[in-house]
Amino acid sequence: MKFKKIGSTYLIRLEKDERIIERLSGLCEKEKIKGGYFFGLGALSELELGHFNLATQKYSSKKFSGEYEVVSLNGNVSSLDGRIYIHAHIVVGDSEFQSWSGHLKEATVSATCEIYLIKLDEDVRRKRDEKTGLNLLDV
Amino acid sequence: MKFKKIGSTYLIRLEKDERIIERLSGLCEKEKIKGGYFFGLGALSELELGHFNLATQKYSSKKFSGEYEVVSLNGNVSSLDGRIYIHAHIVVGDSEFQSWSGHLKEATVSATCEIYLIKLDEDVRRKRDEKTGLNLLDV
Amino acid sequence: MKFKKIGSTYLIRLEKDERIIERLSGLCEKEKIKGGYFFGLGALSELELGHFNLATQKYSSKKFSGEYEVVSLNGNVSSLDGRIYIHAHIVVGDSEFQSWSGHLKEATVSATCEIYLIKLDEDVRRKRDEKTGLNLLDV
Repeated sequence: MKFKKIGSTYLIRLEKDERIIERLSGLCEKEKIKGGYFFGLGALSELELGHFNLATQKYSSKKFSGEYEVVSLNGNVSSLDGRIYIHAHIVVGDSEFQSWSGHLKEATVSATCEIYLIKLDEDVRRKRDEKTGLNLLDV
Repeated sequence: MKFKKIGSTYLIRLEKDERIIERLSGLCEKEKIKGGYFFGLGALSELELGHFNLATQKYSSKKFSGEYEVVSLNGNVSSLDGRIYIHAHIVVGDSEFQSWSGHLKEATVSATCEIYLIKLDEDVRRKRDEKTGLNLLDV
Repeated sequence: MKFKKIGSTYLIRLEKDERIIERLSGLCEKEKIKGGYFFGLGALSELELGHFNLATQKYSSKKFSGEYEVVSLNGNVSSLDGRIYIHAHIVVGDSEFQSWSGHLKEATVSATCEIYLIKLDEDVRRKRDEKTGLNLLDV
């Protein structure tokens, strides 16, 4: 992972075999980013998508392996109990240009991944919500 | 709906049964946001997508009902004849991780929806265009 | 193409038959934008998507013709060897609300296309990488 900061925007480039959520979390820890949002595009070799079921309050998930373009990576940075929390959703395109979408559990970069993260001037927190079973944005 | 303002960015959390376009319009009215753009992710129980047909100058539409992840919500805020105008497009993922896309007519939140809206320093207007039948961005 | 600048954000409206990558490149040349990122929504009559194959280091591509909504256009602006470089990925929705995704080679606007481009305060460069065969973000 390489990055460069321009104003409050971080330009991040991930390299082959790096994991997106892991690397973003690490960067936010290191740079003390506790509030922000990001966008990305790139290419993946592996990913795991989640889909939330409100009745069971659980995520079902599916692993994808092959060559996928990251067509829309969209998420935000906050903290839960003092730890960095990355919440991201993603659309990927396969070799037939079909689209697969969901909550991003984790993904492994194949060729490259370019993420632009905008740091906010204040920290953002989450709190556990028993009614939905989710860690909601505490605004 | 809860929200928090950090600089010119509004962090918005919608709750179960709230409608996205209705709530965003209401917030923009209240906060006098007449120019901006936004991004979101979350989960829906209902949504209606539109697809514009240039020949008939009409939107066809389809209603979806079930459990959908909001994977990319992308839009802007302007005004038309003095009233707030929300223009949004959306990609949602179903429980098989398949993707459905279109112009967002309206959507109802299931568990939660997180929207980051950036307010611009000037108002943005739309004007009716007879040639296309659309309300075009007046730039 | 019409545009308006509000702070460091360009609001851009493309018109029927204009090509997105060509117009964005032209605007960035004219306005000396050598670092930035953008988002867009609109409608297209033609587009060509690419999918990168890491083994062959080549993009396969497919042309689409018909009526497509631009549901997520997501990209960044940099320069390579002094020339503007637009890197964009896109999700489009067809008349059945199905989604098609990939690297955006080029697209032709049908009714309208609204792009919000945020200019960064510093230039961003790319460099050729022999290992992947890609022009990587030089951060």
